[in-house]
Amino acid sequence: MAEATNEPKKQTESTLPEAAAEPSRQEVQAPAQPAVPGVPDEAAPAGVSNPKADIAALNSLEMHLYAHRYAETMMGCFGPSIDPVKATHDRGEAQAILDEEDQELLCAKNTGELLERLQRESPMLSRTQRAQVRILRRERSRLMDVPPKEQAAFTRLLAESGAVWHKAKAANDWASFEPYLDRVVNAMRHIANCQNPGKNPYDVWLDYYEQGTSRAFYNHFFREVKKTVVPLLQEISQRPQLSRRVVEGRFEAERQWALARDLMDLEGLDPDVMVLTKTEHPYSDGITTNYAMIAAHVYEDDVLSNLYTMLHEGGHALYETGVNPEFNYTSLKGGTSMGMHEGQSRFFENYVGRSEAFAPALLKLLRKHFPGQFSRVSARQFYMAANRVEPSLIRTEADELTYPLHIIVRYEIEQLLMEGDISAQQVPMLWADRYKKYLGIRVPDYTHGCLQDTHWADGLIGYFPTYALGGAYGAQLRHQMIADGMDFDGVLATGDIAPIRSWLKKHVWQWGRAFDPQEIIQNACGEPFNVAYYTDYLTQKFSSLYEL
Amino acid sequence: MAEATNEPKKQTESTLPEAAAEPSRQEVQAPAQPAVPGVPDEAAPAGVSNPKADIAALNSLEMHLYAHRYAETMMGCFGPSIDPVKATHDRGEAQAILDEEDQELLCAKNTGELLERLQRESPMLSRTQRAQVRILRRERSRLMDVPPKEQAAFTRLLAESGAVWHKAKAANDWASFEPYLDRVVNAMRHIANCQNPGKNPYDVWLDYYEQGTSRAFYNHFFREVKKTVVPLLQEISQRPQLSRRVVEGRFEAERQWALARDLMDLEGLDPDVMVLTKTEHPYSDGITTNYAMIAAHVYEDDVLSNLYTMLHEGGHALYETGVNPEFNYTSLKGGTSMGMHEGQSRFFENYVGRSEAFAPALLKLLRKHFPGQFSRVSARQFYMAANRVEPSLIRTEADELTYPLHIIVRYEIEQLLMEGDISAQQVPMLWADRYKKYLGIRVPDYTHGCLQDTHWADGLIGYFPTYALGGAYGAQLRHQMIADGMDFDGVLATGDIAPIRSWLKKHVWQWGRAFDPQEIIQNACGEPFNVAYYTDYLTQKFSSLYEL
Repeated sequence: MAEATNEPKKQTESTLPEAAAEPSRQEVQAPAQPAVPGVPDEAAPAGVSNPKADIAALNSLEMHLYAHRYAETMMGCFGPSIDPVKATHDRGEAQAILDEEDQELLCAKNTGELLERLQRESPMLSRTQRAQVRILRRERSRLMDVPPKEQAAFTRLLAESGAVWHKAKAANDWASFEPYLDRVVNAMRHIANCQNPGKNPYDVWLDYYEQGTSRAFYNHFFREVKKTVVPLLQEISQRPQLSRRVVEGRFEAERQWALARDLMDLEGLDPDVMVLTKTEHPYSDGITTNYAMIAAHVYEDDVLSNLYTMLHEGGHALYETGVNPEFNYTSLKGGTSMGMHEGQSRFFENYVGRSEAFAPALLKLLRKHFPGQFSRVSARQFYMAANRVEPSLIRTEADELTYPLHIIVRYEIEQLLMEGDISAQQVPMLWADRYKKYLGIRVPDYTHGCLQDTHWADGLIGYFPTYALGGAYGAQLRHQMIADGMDFDGVLATGDIAPIRSWLKKHVWQWGRAFDPQEIIQNACGEPFNVAYYTDYLTQKFSSLYEL
Repeated sequence: MAEATNEPKKQTESTLPEAAAEPSRQEVQAPAQPAVPGVPDEAAPAGVSNPKADIAALNSLEMHLYAHRYAETMMGCFGPSIDPVKATHDRGEAQAILDEEDQELLCAKNTGELLERLQRESPMLSRTQRAQVRILRRERSRLMDVPPKEQAAFTRLLAESGAVWHKAKAANDWASFEPYLDRVVNAMRHIANCQNPGKNPYDVWLDYYEQGTSRAFYNHFFREVKKTVVPLLQEISQRPQLSRRVVEGRFEAERQWALARDLMDLEGLDPDVMVLTKTEHPYSDGITTNYAMIAAHVYEDDVLSNLYTMLHEGGHALYETGVNPEFNYTSLKGGTSMGMHEGQSRFFENYVGRSEAFAPALLKLLRKHFPGQFSRVSARQFYMAANRVEPSLIRTEADELTYPLHIIVRYEIEQLLMEGDISAQQVPMLWADRYKKYLGIRVPDYTHGCLQDTHWADGLIGYFPTYALGGAYGAQLRHQMIADGMDFDGVLATGDIAPIRSWLKKHVWQWGRAFDPQEIIQNACGEPFNVAYYTDYLTQKFSSLYEL
């Protein structure tokens, strides 16, 4: 059950993949002898291989991309919460220029030639360097066909639409955001068409956020999920409801922030590599393994919201800081995909945080900060309260069972938008319709409806499905931990989840972007992704809870 | 006394200076046909002038420099207070790379050729464009002789020394910071030697922070200041002391932050372009006119510290946001020099904030936030308390009269360090010696002595003298406002200082970096800088206060 039993049987270092051939389609005009930031010098006489010089050029290229990533992460993450109201446009301009620089750097002719030479020299490269070349070639190929000015215009649009959404949500004002959604959709369709004219634009974006996925993949996935969740929900609605009374009350904000810090400790985050800040819409991000950030919020009438937000965002931060530190200044730093990222965050939110075995550990912290409210609450009562199934309006506050239905609503609307079947104007009506159909509830306003999430304003159409997929990845990883001999509930019961972190670090986190998500699952579990682990888990957990 | 009486007699638009000839010394190897971020394309056939294309290239160059400036300001200002403890090194790496990029961009051969062509085409340029070319040529010339790797190494060193200083100050631990000061001094001497091998390194840096200054200039300036301040201080020490009793007490931190926001309002700052954040060492900075930041601190046992810190940093922010908005994405954005910047900050701190006429306005705010303490304090009592002259240890908390003596201590030590006459090891002893000699007090430890300021750790040797000079600029500007017909005390007495802001905006702020500081003074006052306005002001104010 502890670390010692984790056999390294499935994933060995030698499985790091070779780069796939990805021909570049169009070369950007570039100088013969650039002396300009990051673009490699021209090769020595053609045909003469000089891997040492090429590796130095690769490292220099990576350092420039790293510096820009650092700046872009600071501006993108802190900008919206820190920057003055009137600075939005100026930030967008700066972000657009940095984007343009990245694109021109990657698309320069010399960069293309360097990457081709490195590809040919791969026997002389380390496994890490081969993985870097693979990722850089893929990113270059993706950017080659998008005119830099269009990419920059998209960045500018997002800075603006993010700010408009922010105000629109607060004011329950769909009309002001609506034209921006149309503009975002158009821009994303256009960019997808530039990249892959023959492919459905939504498929292009689904594959971008999760390599190897498509509408076909998700249609199958969501069909299976619906087949399990909808009947379960139906049966549960016939049963007596679990009580949430024990977690109700008022919870003073400052104490909740202190609780949030203790939750980070409990999860195993090093405070010296973390920033915790306040925001409207929670998120997390990371730069190097020495720098992860969590932005969260607290509601004085809902302590569970804080608790599960922190566990969720903390899971992202564990992934970011658990990557091999040698990847820090390279393109291999970061999570391999959005789905795998959500796989980690939802792992700590649900498989750890909403388990019965971990309830005593959470209850102990709640008692520390709110002794009056929690001194007489039992672990079983808390577990039941945290798992009450109840169709609701807000995705981020949803229980584990209805959560994927919130995603299905968005997935269906995104498809219609991207295929041009509807415009933004029809979104609120469709939103209300789908919430009625899948969750059986009425949407009272935009703020609690189609304005609740920041994603569309941020140009993240195609991202939502990865949340649900991440939940399913997590179920499969959890199943494998147990198959590997871990006494999963036993570990949770100790309140020290170091063995779980070690397993995930070994099989997922450390690899950063060196493996694609499907490879991570295959290597970790010895079989491909299988939705059944997820649907089985949901069936078992909620049948037991509601005595179905 | 109001705006209407401000005759535009001294500064007219036609006085924008022509670019001085500044031959570049060494060209960086650059591509024939660069397509890389920011570096202009090669000119059309030599000799064929194409001002339209050149102006487009100038704008593009400026946009790239702007985007980097945005990123660098975020990282430099927020980094040290926001970033996780362990991220310091990673931030330094990113900052160093961005610095390198700026330098390579400005030093590229094509950039040099573009600026030379624009210089030749100046009759076809707007006055703003001519000023841009002047500033860009000067910056390029300054960078041409510093190898980019050395500049980057300096940036990395500063990220580290800043973090070391932070801990050293908290721990009263000079030994840990000492080697870093030696390294900073060596690096700054070396960079100065690269730039101007024939010139004294300290003179190079003095001129960098304040164009047109040198040791000769400051030796004269400080001699005059000492001639006034030292005897005044001597006489004051024989007189009965002013009481500070009325401002003593405990002032709860959260209320002080609310007071800080009201002070920003009183000063006339637009909250929609401002960020107020917390820090150990107060500072302010600006990006565009839509983005200024103030970092401050509060001490619960010293409300005056908060009050004068906010007025001071608010003065900087007024300058940054008062620049002509058309300069936003150009090299003309920002204050023209450190001294002129301090001239604005110390204007609001002292000539406004420590005046008798403005005391009722400040008292009104103090009464609002701390009614218990201030309800029975008179404006006269408050004025006297805020102007009590008392030799003290901390520069930023010093009264207006002893303040320049703190600067003289630093100026003398900086000279010795930069000339190699002493090493960092001797600084604490010299510090103690000079505080005894000029201020008559004993320095009890490093934290309240030579570790109090962040400047040396940040590579700002040569910056301190601009604080004192700024005070003197302010005195001359104030004198000129009155000569222009403003009833200065009358304006202060109304509590609405809009006429003062308008005068400064018209004569100083709007010009950004389009004029050098000596030109600003000449244009605003119709005569060159003259220290006598400052020494006369001090003599008159403190003779009257202490009935000398």
